[in-house]
Amino acid sequence: MNHQEALSKDLEIRCSRLQEAMRAVNVDACVLTTTVNVFYMTGCVYNGYFYLPAEGEPFHFVKRPEGIAFDNTVYVRKPEQITEELLSRDVSFPKTLLLETDVISFGECSRLLNTFGLNTAANASVLMRKIRSIKTAFELEQVKVCARRHEAVYKLIPSVFKRGMTDVEFQIEIEKLMRLHGSLGLFRSYGENMDIYMGSLLAGENAEVPSPFDFALGGAGSSPILPLGASGQTIQEGQTIMVDMAGNYTPWMTDMTRVFSVGKTSDIAHQAHQVSIDIHNHTMDIAKPGTKCSDLYEIAMERVVKANLEPYFMGTKQQAKFVGHGVGLEINEPPVLTPRSKEVLEPNIVFALEPKFVIPEVGAVGIENTYAVTDGGIEKLTILEENIIKL
Amino acid sequence: MNHQEALSKDLEIRCSRLQEAMRAVNVDACVLTTTVNVFYMTGCVYNGYFYLPAEGEPFHFVKRPEGIAFDNTVYVRKPEQITEELLSRDVSFPKTLLLETDVISFGECSRLLNTFGLNTAANASVLMRKIRSIKTAFELEQVKVCARRHEAVYKLIPSVFKRGMTDVEFQIEIEKLMRLHGSLGLFRSYGENMDIYMGSLLAGENAEVPSPFDFALGGAGSSPILPLGASGQTIQEGQTIMVDMAGNYTPWMTDMTRVFSVGKTSDIAHQAHQVSIDIHNHTMDIAKPGTKCSDLYEIAMERVVKANLEPYFMGTKQQAKFVGHGVGLEINEPPVLTPRSKEVLEPNIVFALEPKFVIPEVGAVGIENTYAVTDGGIEKLTILEENIIKL
Repeated sequence: MNHQEALSKDLEIRCSRLQEAMRAVNVDACVLTTTVNVFYMTGCVYNGYFYLPAEGEPFHFVKRPEGIAFDNTVYVRKPEQITEELLSRDVSFPKTLLLETDVISFGECSRLLNTFGLNTAANASVLMRKIRSIKTAFELEQVKVCARRHEAVYKLIPSVFKRGMTDVEFQIEIEKLMRLHGSLGLFRSYGENMDIYMGSLLAGENAEVPSPFDFALGGAGSSPILPLGASGQTIQEGQTIMVDMAGNYTPWMTDMTRVFSVGKTSDIAHQAHQVSIDIHNHTMDIAKPGTKCSDLYEIAMERVVKANLEPYFMGTKQQAKFVGHGVGLEINEPPVLTPRSKEVLEPNIVFALEPKFVIPEVGAVGIENTYAVTDGGIEKLTILEENIIKL
Repeated sequence: MNHQEALSKDLEIRCSRLQEAMRAVNVDACVLTTTVNVFYMTGCVYNGYFYLPAEGEPFHFVKRPEGIAFDNTVYVRKPEQITEELLSRDVSFPKTLLLETDVISFGECSRLLNTFGLNTAANASVLMRKIRSIKTAFELEQVKVCARRHEAVYKLIPSVFKRGMTDVEFQIEIEKLMRLHGSLGLFRSYGENMDIYMGSLLAGENAEVPSPFDFALGGAGSSPILPLGASGQTIQEGQTIMVDMAGNYTPWMTDMTRVFSVGKTSDIAHQAHQVSIDIHNHTMDIAKPGTKCSDLYEIAMERVVKANLEPYFMGTKQQAKFVGHGVGLEINEPPVLTPRSKEVLEPNIVFALEPKFVIPEVGAVGIENTYAVTDGGIEKLTILEENIIKL
C-alpha cells in the first residue's frame, strides 16, 4: 500500500470515528473550519467548511484554493451558501450542530449558527481534540518519522555551539539545523497564550523569568511583544542550557527536551536532572492503558518532594501545574497531566512527559520525551542520550 | 526623552484615542484580551484582560505572568472575577461593552458576556484595527527602525545564494540572516487563513500554485499541512525568485518584496516588473490624505490592462483582488486596497503596495514597498534597488 492509499484508508477511519462520536452524543452534523481539523479530516488544507452529517458522505464547501477535487466539493464565497447548497441538494438541515466553539471567533460562530437557524452549538473543539488524541496506525508512523528527525537534529546540537555565543545565536544555529532536516517552521498550538517561535532555548538565569504564555517554563525573550525563551544574554561557563525546540518534521509532532552544560555545572543541577530521569523511568514502568493522568502527576510530585526539590519544580517564581500533555497536529493536545485531570491513558495516545526544574543562577534541567501508549504499557519514541551533555 | 518615557507618553495617547472612540459610539467599557491589543494598550504582554472604561483609569486583570506592576493590577484566575473585583471597588458595570468579537472564541466571548450580564457586545476587533491603523510618532519611529533592518537583510541576499540550491535551502539562508539581524521569528497576522512561516519565497513555476491562505500569492509549500511558499524544487537558470520575507525586526513591521533572477530572465518578466515599478512611482505621485483606497486599486489595474498583463496580475490560476494593505503590529491591517474599499488614506497610515505578476514558466515579478502617509503625500519607507537583481 503506498502513502496515498494508506492516507485514504486512514481518512475513512477518522471519518467513521467522528460520525460514531456524533451519533453517541445525538448530533446531526458537524462543520469544521480550522486548518488543523480540516487537515485531519481531509488530508489537505482548504479555506472553507468541512460539513459532515452523522450518517452519509461529507461535503466540502471551499473558498480557496482552486482545484479541490473531492466528491461533493462546492465552491462558496460565504457561509450562508452552505445552507443554500444543502437545500438545493435536498439535504435535510441539522437540528443539532457541532461547531468549533472554543476556537472560531464569536463573529464567525454566530454567523454559522444564523445560517443554520440555530441558537446554540455543541462543542466540536473538545470532541475533535478527544478524537485526535487517539492516534491511528498511520498517524503513529508519521510521529515516528518525526521522532527520528528530531533526534538527528539534537545529535548535531553540540557541533554548532561556540563559547561566547548568546542564547539567541545558539538557538539560530539550531533553527537552521531543524529547517535543513525538514522542520516546517510553523509550530501549531491550541488556544490563546501559546505564542512561540520554533521552540524554547533557556540558558542560565533566564530560565527563572515568568512568561505570560502557557508553556512549562518561561524566559524573558528578546522583545516585549514576545516575552518567552532566549533573551540575548551571553551563555556563561557552568550554566545549563535547556533545549526544547519543536519536533515539527511531519504534520504530527514530537516533543523532546535535552539539557547541555558549558563545562561542569553544579551538583544540585545534576541531582535534579537525575530526579527527572528517574520520574521518566518510573513512569515507563507503571504507565499503561487505564492509568490516571492525575496519578502520573502525583508520581512525579512524590519524587520531587522526597528530593526536597519542590521550590525548583516547573519554575521558581512561577510554577506550572502540569508535568505533561498530549502531542499531535498541535503541540498541546489532551490529555494533560495535572493533579486535577479526570483523563486516563488509552492505547495510541501520544503524550510528552516533561518534569523540569529551574536551579537559580544555573539554569533549567530535566528531560522531556514523547511516548505512545501501547496495549500493555508505554513506548518511548524520542530516544537520545538523557544525561546532561557537556559542551 | 528616553525610550521608556516616550513609550509612557505614547501609551497615554493610545488610551485617550480609544476612550474618545468609545465615547463617540456610546460604549461604556472595553475588554481586550488578545496579545496584540494588550500589547498596544500596555506596552507589554500579559495573559488576562485589559479593562478600560470610557472615562477614567484602566484595570489590568492578569492571570500570568507574576510581577505585572501597573496601577490597578488585579490578579485573577478566571474572567468571572473581573466583575467581582469591579463590584468590590464600587465601579459601576458597563451597560454596553466592546469585546474582540472577530478574534476571541465563541466560548470565551460568551463567558465574558455572561460575566457582565450582557447579551451582545460591540466589535472591539474592528475598532482597535481602525485606531491602530493610524500610527503615532513613536510607532512610526519603530517602523523606520524595522525598515532599516529589513533593507540590510535584503542587501545580503545575493551573498547567500548558490547555484543548484532548492528554493527551501535559499529561504533557510535568508531566515538565518533575518534572525541574526533581530527578526523575532514569529510573524503576526490577523484572522484565520493566514498561516505562514517567516514569509514567502517563490521561485519559477511554483509561483502559479494556488494556496488556501489569504496572501497575495501562493506556492505549493513543502508539506500538505502548510501549502504555501517554497516547495523544495531546485532553482533553475532563467527563473525569477520573489522574496517577500517578514520585516518583523521591531513589534511594528514593514513589508517589502524584491525579485532576483538566476542569470538572464525573459523580456515579459522584465516588462511586467517595470509595470509594477511604474505603479509604485505613479502612486507616490498622486497618493495623499483623502485618496480613496479603491482608486489606488483602479490606478494599478489601469496600467496592468494597458500593458495587456491582466492574465498574470496577482496570480494566474487564482488571482488576489487587492494590491495593498495596512501594516503594523499585524502584517494585514486596514486599509485594504481593493476595488470595493470604502476607506481613504489618512495621515500616519502605514501601508504596503504590492502589484505583482506571475509569468508562467518564469516566476513571480513586481515589487512591494511600505509607505507612510504624510500630511501632503506618502513617504517610501523601504528603500532598496527595485529592478530585478541578477544572482
